[in-house]
Amino acid sequence: MNGAESVLRTLAASGVEVCFANPGTSEMHLVAAMDRVPEVRGILTLFEGVASAAADGYARLAGKPAATLLHLGPGFGNAFANVHNAYKGRTPMVNLVGDHAVLHRPLGAPLTSDVEAIAGPASHWLRSARDAREAAVLAAEAVAVARSGAVATLVLPADAGWDESLGPAAPLSVGGLPTVPEEAVEAAARALRSGKAALLLGGSTTRERGLAAAARIAAGTGAAVVHDTFTPVLSRGGSRPRARLLPYLTELAVDALAGFEQLIVVGTRPPVGFFAYPGKPSLLWSPDSAVTVLATAEEDALTALEAVADLVGAEPEPVEPLARPELPTGGALDLMTLTAAVGALLPDDAVVVDEAVTASALFQEQTGGAGEHDYLFLTGGAIGWGLPAATGAAVGAPGRPVFNFEADGSAMYTIQALWTQAREELDVTTIVVANRSYAILEFEFSRVGAEGDGAAARALMDIGRPELDFAGLARAQGVPGRRVDDVPGLIDALQEAIAEPGPHLIEALV
Amino acid sequence: MNGAESVLRTLAASGVEVCFANPGTSEMHLVAAMDRVPEVRGILTLFEGVASAAADGYARLAGKPAATLLHLGPGFGNAFANVHNAYKGRTPMVNLVGDHAVLHRPLGAPLTSDVEAIAGPASHWLRSARDAREAAVLAAEAVAVARSGAVATLVLPADAGWDESLGPAAPLSVGGLPTVPEEAVEAAARALRSGKAALLLGGSTTRERGLAAAARIAAGTGAAVVHDTFTPVLSRGGSRPRARLLPYLTELAVDALAGFEQLIVVGTRPPVGFFAYPGKPSLLWSPDSAVTVLATAEEDALTALEAVADLVGAEPEPVEPLARPELPTGGALDLMTLTAAVGALLPDDAVVVDEAVTASALFQEQTGGAGEHDYLFLTGGAIGWGLPAATGAAVGAPGRPVFNFEADGSAMYTIQALWTQAREELDVTTIVVANRSYAILEFEFSRVGAEGDGAAARALMDIGRPELDFAGLARAQGVPGRRVDDVPGLIDALQEAIAEPGPHLIEALV
Repeated sequence: MNGAESVLRTLAASGVEVCFANPGTSEMHLVAAMDRVPEVRGILTLFEGVASAAADGYARLAGKPAATLLHLGPGFGNAFANVHNAYKGRTPMVNLVGDHAVLHRPLGAPLTSDVEAIAGPASHWLRSARDAREAAVLAAEAVAVARSGAVATLVLPADAGWDESLGPAAPLSVGGLPTVPEEAVEAAARALRSGKAALLLGGSTTRERGLAAAARIAAGTGAAVVHDTFTPVLSRGGSRPRARLLPYLTELAVDALAGFEQLIVVGTRPPVGFFAYPGKPSLLWSPDSAVTVLATAEEDALTALEAVADLVGAEPEPVEPLARPELPTGGALDLMTLTAAVGALLPDDAVVVDEAVTASALFQEQTGGAGEHDYLFLTGGAIGWGLPAATGAAVGAPGRPVFNFEADGSAMYTIQALWTQAREELDVTTIVVANRSYAILEFEFSRVGAEGDGAAARALMDIGRPELDFAGLARAQGVPGRRVDDVPGLIDALQEAIAEPGPHLIEALV
Repeated sequence: MNGAESVLRTLAASGVEVCFANPGTSEMHLVAAMDRVPEVRGILTLFEGVASAAADGYARLAGKPAATLLHLGPGFGNAFANVHNAYKGRTPMVNLVGDHAVLHRPLGAPLTSDVEAIAGPASHWLRSARDAREAAVLAAEAVAVARSGAVATLVLPADAGWDESLGPAAPLSVGGLPTVPEEAVEAAARALRSGKAALLLGGSTTRERGLAAAARIAAGTGAAVVHDTFTPVLSRGGSRPRARLLPYLTELAVDALAGFEQLIVVGTRPPVGFFAYPGKPSLLWSPDSAVTVLATAEEDALTALEAVADLVGAEPEPVEPLARPELPTGGALDLMTLTAAVGALLPDDAVVVDEAVTASALFQEQTGGAGEHDYLFLTGGAIGWGLPAATGAAVGAPGRPVFNFEADGSAMYTIQALWTQAREELDVTTIVVANRSYAILEFEFSRVGAEGDGAAARALMDIGRPELDFAGLARAQGVPGRRVDDVPGLIDALQEAIAEPGPHLIEALV
């Protein structure tokens, strides 16, 4: 058995079921091994950035890592932005990066580059196999590391794939996350009892288990429950316990955290601005707040949160579902009617992938009254994540409808993801909010104190010349695409997409 | 004057005229400065990999660097593959990468990453400005370094853009490339006189000046003149002196270099295989050949080559133009008729950007009889370069028709480049060879000794399910697109594209 097959069999034995691939020549032995190891399903993408975001979306839903298969340094470069998003969200992910054969690499062939340097900033774990014998052992380690919430990157020289190996390595047991010390639990409990308090939840704590513990703490102490602006998955809707979104805008986030004497941080970091702005603070909490970190993202935040709830919590009142917005029946198609229609029609048990950028706040608000659903956020801030993350989410959550709220600017980074949606017949509805601009930049332009309103600057934020035809881009890749410019058309398109399985794209002109 | 304006004015003073941009919030002050520094033309791209390849294509034709404007580590990641191609070709390029404000960077905001680590493997020169005062000085240094044939990357924290500066820095004089020592010139001359010799040209030596010197050497010594498989620009066609292409395939390259007692390497490295293959050599020259490196790519290879020609050269015979292929009049549309039609119709003074992968060899052969033209190769081997490089080439060579020979697989990496072609009304004709597969991988699969012919492996090399509609992808971005499946249709589409200025895409089903 060659090294490639031993690696793939190791992944399979360790529970990896899917590999999002964009292979090249140096990965051909891994590709060949796919037929001998059917436990790992290869899914082809047309660009590495699709593969990495798909693996991110998959793992957030499936709760276990997918593999990616990437081609040397440039392949990792193409994947980088979405590996970064996974890295910041601590999504389990195993990247297999083919490289030149060991003795070929020093020769300076065109595709040679320093893979490890490129992969390092987005990998919690990074190793390079020296030979076929070592490859499977490192693959087992990569999966075990990834399963505890990490991006693991394994560089595989081509000859480590084609040379004879010792066969697959046994799965390694996953060492859980470090337990939070009892003192930190007690400190958080004391803080919650000693003044007006807010819990800031992030990482793993914004799903049902964490939200339930936070609700008990809120019932026992009156603490406010707030969640990170970009948490990996927020379980919400129906009668689930709710948390308030920490706003994206520095000013609004500072307002949201003002007046709390105690800020207890769980599964994330003390909150900082997405960007710095001249004259505005980078730290979002009030200088008058005491900050207590109950658990970082690298610790077992869920167990710690439950321990605090056991100390200070009480049984919460049942949660009343919020009202859904009325289904609009007419009027112009604008952000308000668009998001209201989506909120009115979002199916139960949906998965939402939100990269709507300037439209995100309204989508979040208007879908709050929908049935239970999971809401995925852009954890690393690198756009070009939405379409492929939705692709992977649909693979990771079969049977659940996936909705991707997408901005037109960010959609164009990884538009190739639609092809994989069509190829795999995935149940993804992409709603492109077509405002024909990088609206977030027009907004940020003045916020950072940039001066001037000239044509040259505006041109770098205007994507309306020429007009992009997103419905056409979808159809050209095998995805039914519709452009809608009024409310009845939108509702018809949404109802069609909900009724028909498989991918759909709705381009909403607002 | 803030730091951003000082940087932009420094670029302008140093002769940078174009900035291919995909900015974000941290670059807003540079965007604002675009209106105050009209000498630098901002060109918007929808993805950073388009910006970097466009800068590569531009500089190869314009002979001076363009700037790119990129957004933090993920932005450089998206640009990486095509910066790598420029790095390997030693294209002059200045990357401006915005980063968080200096005091914001340690706080771990979502978009924070180690920009320098990512940029390092593809940058000959890499610096990070600490403040607004330093930014312009570093910008001047970046342009000077780039002008000598290098990728220069300057990381600009947001506050180095918005804080007050001391104004622009004066241009730095460009130190030329190091002169090749006289002993190396004499050694090359001796080698050429002492046995059956081949000159291997690369880097800067495959344009008119280098080819003329090589022709004199060939006339004086009988040496064969061969050029690198992937040289940045080959000036060819008409009565220009010719060089033989070193084939891509290891076996054919070894054959091409067999029998030479002397191999003289000029402006490049001793040739190695693109990939390693089990049981095949990585070094392409014969073990019986003596290898003499006249000049590396980092030295003044052109002057050295001319010095050798002065020692051993003679006046060459005039070069007879090769015959163009006959314009096919019927028959099936296949690679042979496609490339023959292109060879028959290629306009004089064209720029060719070749990323046709498996079809490249035929395109190269069939266009050899065309009038004088420049032929651009994929220097770093990272696909997704062709469409955006053609975009930049058209900006860098106004008035010249640009032809992009493109494979369907590689076209999908940076398909967003078409939008910039439409926006800037660039005279680019993209010919997509649609064979619905990663044909190069199907070919390489057996060459690396991968075994099996199963469905799972084949599926990872098949991009025909669903069919991609490239003409539709073009039209959806504002570029006239036509699908042709017979010879008359192809010829009509080619003639239309040649007659009408502006971008066209022809999807050729073969």
